[in-house]
Amino acid sequence: MVGPANDPASPPRRLRLGMVGGGQGAFIGAVHRLAARMDNRYDLVAGALSSRSDVARASAAECFIAPDRAYDDFREMAQREAEREDGIEVCAIVTPNNLHFPAAMAMLDAGIHVICDKPLCMSVEEGEQLAAKIEETGLLFALTHNYTAYPMVREARDMVRSGKLGNIRLVQVEYPQGWLATPVDNKQASWRADPAKAGPGGALGDIGTHAHNLADFVTGLEISELCADLSSMVEGRALDDNVQILLRYKNGARGMLWASQVAIGHENGLKLRVYGDKGAIEWAQEHPNHMYFRQLDEQPRLMTRGGPGNSAAGGRVRVPSGHAEGYLEGFATLYTDFADQLCARIDGHIPNAEAALVPGIAEGLNGMRFIEAVIASSQRGASWTSM
Amino acid sequence: MVGPANDPASPPRRLRLGMVGGGQGAFIGAVHRLAARMDNRYDLVAGALSSRSDVARASAAECFIAPDRAYDDFREMAQREAEREDGIEVCAIVTPNNLHFPAAMAMLDAGIHVICDKPLCMSVEEGEQLAAKIEETGLLFALTHNYTAYPMVREARDMVRSGKLGNIRLVQVEYPQGWLATPVDNKQASWRADPAKAGPGGALGDIGTHAHNLADFVTGLEISELCADLSSMVEGRALDDNVQILLRYKNGARGMLWASQVAIGHENGLKLRVYGDKGAIEWAQEHPNHMYFRQLDEQPRLMTRGGPGNSAAGGRVRVPSGHAEGYLEGFATLYTDFADQLCARIDGHIPNAEAALVPGIAEGLNGMRFIEAVIASSQRGASWTSM
Amino acid sequence: MVGPANDPASPPRRLRLGMVGGGQGAFIGAVHRLAARMDNRYDLVAGALSSRSDVARASAAECFIAPDRAYDDFREMAQREAEREDGIEVCAIVTPNNLHFPAAMAMLDAGIHVICDKPLCMSVEEGEQLAAKIEETGLLFALTHNYTAYPMVREARDMVRSGKLGNIRLVQVEYPQGWLATPVDNKQASWRADPAKAGPGGALGDIGTHAHNLADFVTGLEISELCADLSSMVEGRALDDNVQILLRYKNGARGMLWASQVAIGHENGLKLRVYGDKGAIEWAQEHPNHMYFRQLDEQPRLMTRGGPGNSAAGGRVRVPSGHAEGYLEGFATLYTDFADQLCARIDGHIPNAEAALVPGIAEGLNGMRFIEAVIASSQRGASWTSM
Amino acid sequence: MVGPANDPASPPRRLRLGMVGGGQGAFIGAVHRLAARMDNRYDLVAGALSSRSDVARASAAECFIAPDRAYDDFREMAQREAEREDGIEVCAIVTPNNLHFPAAMAMLDAGIHVICDKPLCMSVEEGEQLAAKIEETGLLFALTHNYTAYPMVREARDMVRSGKLGNIRLVQVEYPQGWLATPVDNKQASWRADPAKAGPGGALGDIGTHAHNLADFVTGLEISELCADLSSMVEGRALDDNVQILLRYKNGARGMLWASQVAIGHENGLKLRVYGDKGAIEWAQEHPNHMYFRQLDEQPRLMTRGGPGNSAAGGRVRVPSGHAEGYLEGFATLYTDFADQLCARIDGHIPNAEAALVPGIAEGLNGMRFIEAVIASSQRGASWTSM
Repeated sequence: MVGPANDPASPPRRLRLGMVGGGQGAFIGAVHRLAARMDNRYDLVAGALSSRSDVARASAAECFIAPDRAYDDFREMAQREAEREDGIEVCAIVTPNNLHFPAAMAMLDAGIHVICDKPLCMSVEEGEQLAAKIEETGLLFALTHNYTAYPMVREARDMVRSGKLGNIRLVQVEYPQGWLATPVDNKQASWRADPAKAGPGGALGDIGTHAHNLADFVTGLEISELCADLSSMVEGRALDDNVQILLRYKNGARGMLWASQVAIGHENGLKLRVYGDKGAIEWAQEHPNHMYFRQLDEQPRLMTRGGPGNSAAGGRVRVPSGHAEGYLEGFATLYTDFADQLCARIDGHIPNAEAALVPGIAEGLNGMRFIEAVIASSQRGASWTSM
Repeated sequence: MVGPANDPASPPRRLRLGMVGGGQGAFIGAVHRLAARMDNRYDLVAGALSSRSDVARASAAECFIAPDRAYDDFREMAQREAEREDGIEVCAIVTPNNLHFPAAMAMLDAGIHVICDKPLCMSVEEGEQLAAKIEETGLLFALTHNYTAYPMVREARDMVRSGKLGNIRLVQVEYPQGWLATPVDNKQASWRADPAKAGPGGALGDIGTHAHNLADFVTGLEISELCADLSSMVEGRALDDNVQILLRYKNGARGMLWASQVAIGHENGLKLRVYGDKGAIEWAQEHPNHMYFRQLDEQPRLMTRGGPGNSAAGGRVRVPSGHAEGYLEGFATLYTDFADQLCARIDGHIPNAEAALVPGIAEGLNGMRFIEAVIASSQRGASWTSM
Repeated sequence: MVGPANDPASPPRRLRLGMVGGGQGAFIGAVHRLAARMDNRYDLVAGALSSRSDVARASAAECFIAPDRAYDDFREMAQREAEREDGIEVCAIVTPNNLHFPAAMAMLDAGIHVICDKPLCMSVEEGEQLAAKIEETGLLFALTHNYTAYPMVREARDMVRSGKLGNIRLVQVEYPQGWLATPVDNKQASWRADPAKAGPGGALGDIGTHAHNLADFVTGLEISELCADLSSMVEGRALDDNVQILLRYKNGARGMLWASQVAIGHENGLKLRVYGDKGAIEWAQEHPNHMYFRQLDEQPRLMTRGGPGNSAAGGRVRVPSGHAEGYLEGFATLYTDFADQLCARIDGHIPNAEAALVPGIAEGLNGMRFIEAVIASSQRGASWTSM
Repeated sequence: MVGPANDPASPPRRLRLGMVGGGQGAFIGAVHRLAARMDNRYDLVAGALSSRSDVARASAAECFIAPDRAYDDFREMAQREAEREDGIEVCAIVTPNNLHFPAAMAMLDAGIHVICDKPLCMSVEEGEQLAAKIEETGLLFALTHNYTAYPMVREARDMVRSGKLGNIRLVQVEYPQGWLATPVDNKQASWRADPAKAGPGGALGDIGTHAHNLADFVTGLEISELCADLSSMVEGRALDDNVQILLRYKNGARGMLWASQVAIGHENGLKLRVYGDKGAIEWAQEHPNHMYFRQLDEQPRLMTRGGPGNSAAGGRVRVPSGHAEGYLEGFATLYTDFADQLCARIDGHIPNAEAALVPGIAEGLNGMRFIEAVIASSQRGASWTSM
């Protein structure tokens, strides 16, 4: 072993967690549960894992949720858990996109903090209602843009902020996938292709928002305007499966964003390149422990998670450098950072400085605005659209 | 998301787990605990996490272990847990190498199943005593050679067995690290450099055994003889920090094994290449989700975890292809497969076929024999030595 | 060696070649001359290598051009060579962009075939005049879009034409460089930054045209419309140094083109990705002997120049697969360094310091001793043998 | 273009070159001729290209060698060329290994300098005779260990000498190929498999000597002893096809050398890694323009041919950094294809089918239209513009 790893500091107790969605056959719910367990900061004690009551019951049993806390209606769960002394303190929402809004509202109304999968909801309007509710209740809200939690991504953000890249001139972000290159018919594909469940964006909402959020998170630049061309390459598909965008930033920088679900051969090719007038970085999700740092008139350097020359910004590093770390750990970092926030609120603990990095309502709302601007641009023949 | 992931089948209950070693400041203990949580098959309920009682108590509290089950003596833990109705069923041993043997013996004597970090113990003799004890008690024993649990490694093994590589001719395995290129003085480095705690091998025991085990696991070939040259490159180091070995296999194949802790610039460069008369594979731990498959007169192919053309052998795949998966998951797979074994034994469940892949006493003993043969060869001027 | 290489079929004679531009201090002229020598099909016998007559004369002497065929005016060269019985048959034009048109017209008017560096000229209008002249004279005209001549690029074109990618849906082409990230002042940079010499495009004309031509060559698709955002990132620069374009093709495909000379850290990052409904290819100029071929639901394949599965389309392959094409340059370096040694010996020249690096008899003898020691060791059962 | 390339300084004349071997059907002879032409320092004026006189004559004609200087006996060539005033000054020997010695002796006896392909000869005894002859005659002798001439290899050697790696501890060199994984029967394979023509080593002499020489050239270390295991993996093969060696150097360093011609899937995998107590380098022939430089506690750096941070040691760099050295071949292909077109037009030859791929006026005009459309789009606020 290269050296000692962090044994994540354990608080005196685990948070009582609920979950909406994520029953048998779902993908992202299991990922959330695993992430919640990873650093041992949560106990999953209640769930409305499905609206079909038999599925809800069986799914809950598999998660060691007591039968009396297995619900088939998230509103009922919110109400009844709020009445219990040992009720859930925080609830993860891992449903198709269309239920994010009502489920989050139900939890907030019941005084329960929320962890929500992305994208935030179905429209800017819904997003604004949510924002108001959060403001009103003073409750905490986390959005799981998990790619921001990779150590090298946080390092990249810190490098931009500390001036190592100079003034940012160019942003190239892409997110090609190939799994929808032909008509696909399964549970994962079908809700994503149904505007009523996925919202107005196809590839855009599903992965374009990740690409956008990642560039935002790292650069901190604000988009002034964009020019987007959405396409649907597979016959009969109601939503876009290919997204191509030119970006102009307020500081004069330029950008390009490509997200596609018909790019045959790509599995999950999220990749970000940022160029300033002093240096540039390149990071790709499929090799997340590496990042290239290039400087004017110097040899390019390979940065590795936990390796030489990193700042402290990389955050939670659970295994030594050279030990591949993954996707799940990114999720777990968000959960754990959010637990810090929650404990600070509920128990008066002093939060980790990193806790503030958890994406929240502002990022969610920004994402919704982004989606609407993209669609507006595209519908107007892919013309320049303010944002 | 690319597609649905496995939601690991959850059994009706979690196993009661104990741990020896892994208190504050330790590296591998935290990894084991995380791995145990990952698929939600264990509850850590007791621990002898340190022999210093204040450290043991504080470490246990951080792990949510009840104070009355925080021990500072593993023998006492074994005895008292065995007397409880709700005592531990299985115990993880994550101490320096020299305590693996006495701790494992104590658990087995108390009727407790064992998960043990590698290498097995300090000598073949100790290993044989352990083997006898396991035979005698009929208890289960797992050794965490975690690299064998990567999906692509299990796929490679299946490809060899199913004949896709033809007759194996060549094995090239290497494990370069650079962290001991200069004299290093910290907790991780110091026990590894002390023969009384680490045993007779330095780089050899620490990482050479991983390289050896990996080649064994994938090829199934038996080494007939080897020629090894151990060196200690840093002045004042008592144990080897560089291992170079020529291998001859019983089927006529040839091999080379290199393990080093003074190879500057390498973090954790475990890499295996196997060549048969029909095809060849190449896998590297730092990019564990990829494997190259090369066939006679065909274009090389890139295999990806969960991607096209994989058999079912890859096993537990928790995230879709293209989503980097890691080191921790490998550990978790071993824990979970072993939980299957334990549940089969204790509760009469039908185990997953994969459960049998967990390395056990035979692999541990084989590793000890390998170490002794290597040292013998080296001490005789690096001459050919039977194994 | 992997196998026999093509010895390029040699015709009974070499073509008589002239050159306009490419005198001392120029870059691309030397490349053209080297290329013309490579397969031994041309003799450079005349040149108007500079408009400064001293430079023209000295440059010609270095190229072994006879003094009476060293011109300082390309119009004079065209006229006088046309009058000679052994006059040039074909002329290479390697000047800054603004002279391409008049030099080409002068040659065509004199009945001389033309090889012209890219871009063609300064405007569509000039281009149309040239096209008319070529049509009228019936002479041949080549434009050195050199990237189309890489074997893997020709293979890619053939794959598109033979349907291996299906219907093309997406084109992603980029050409990032970083050498103009700051104000640069040298001969290479200055004419490229001067609209009067470079034409209306900066990065656009210099490298954007290569990216455009490469995508055209491989896909054969016609652009229907485009949306382009040109920027000049460095203060005081008259021409664009960053080009971002969205493309729409007549068949409904979409594309993105990025060319930049301010992308710090990139040397010459031309890269093309083409996605169809059956498959996709990816090729990058910095590793030109490799190409990735990805097909629906299959493992990605690595194609190599001259390797398995290539069609005949790759064309001129001068060294076996696996031999990086710098291989020839390595050989040439030895020859040239040795020529330095020889000239020093024979003619009393002062040799290049590097000439001493050419391996000689000592290295050869050392190699023979190595072979004998190896065989001796092996014959003695692979025992240690002194050398 | 990134910047100006070296226009190799041209001396006032070219050296008169002869060649032994390399007639029709040979591989390495054509490579030597191309290399000799590349920098325009040699004129090939005489040859004993084959011992079969019809082949010798036809091969000479293809090389533009005058009929009276086309020989079928290298001894006759040596004698008659030595008598001519314009006789060859230097002779390249590119025969199978067994003729290197007699041909070199014949040339040296005739006062002709020698360029000899590797390995030097058939035995240490022959080598010592050659060394004595060279000493006696005072003539120059070059051995084409071509891999030492790659710019990054020369840079690596300079880095070792200037202490950037510190004291060398470890050498890992490998040269896997796969082309003899099955019984192969062609001209290239057959002489290499015949001890009478190839000498006592198979893979050892053919590629093992390259690996050995490369490590020697870069490190300058002397081997004190070695332990070698030669194998012949393919039935019926008289010579070794797999070479595995442990090395001990006089300074205490350790090394491993692997050369194989049965490693399926490798084309020409020569790779060198050298580790000192301060730093390490890694270079692979298949990506010869790159080299990794790793230093203690620093981020690994990617060095590129002609890129930042190189010393002057890299020597002859013909194209700017980032231009893969196949770049020259691409240019040459255009020239040669166009020569085909020209010869068809001028002389009535039948052109190669590929000749039609040379870009011409249509491509140039298309490029001009592209430039104008891009500028128009950009000037209209980056709006969609027809093309």
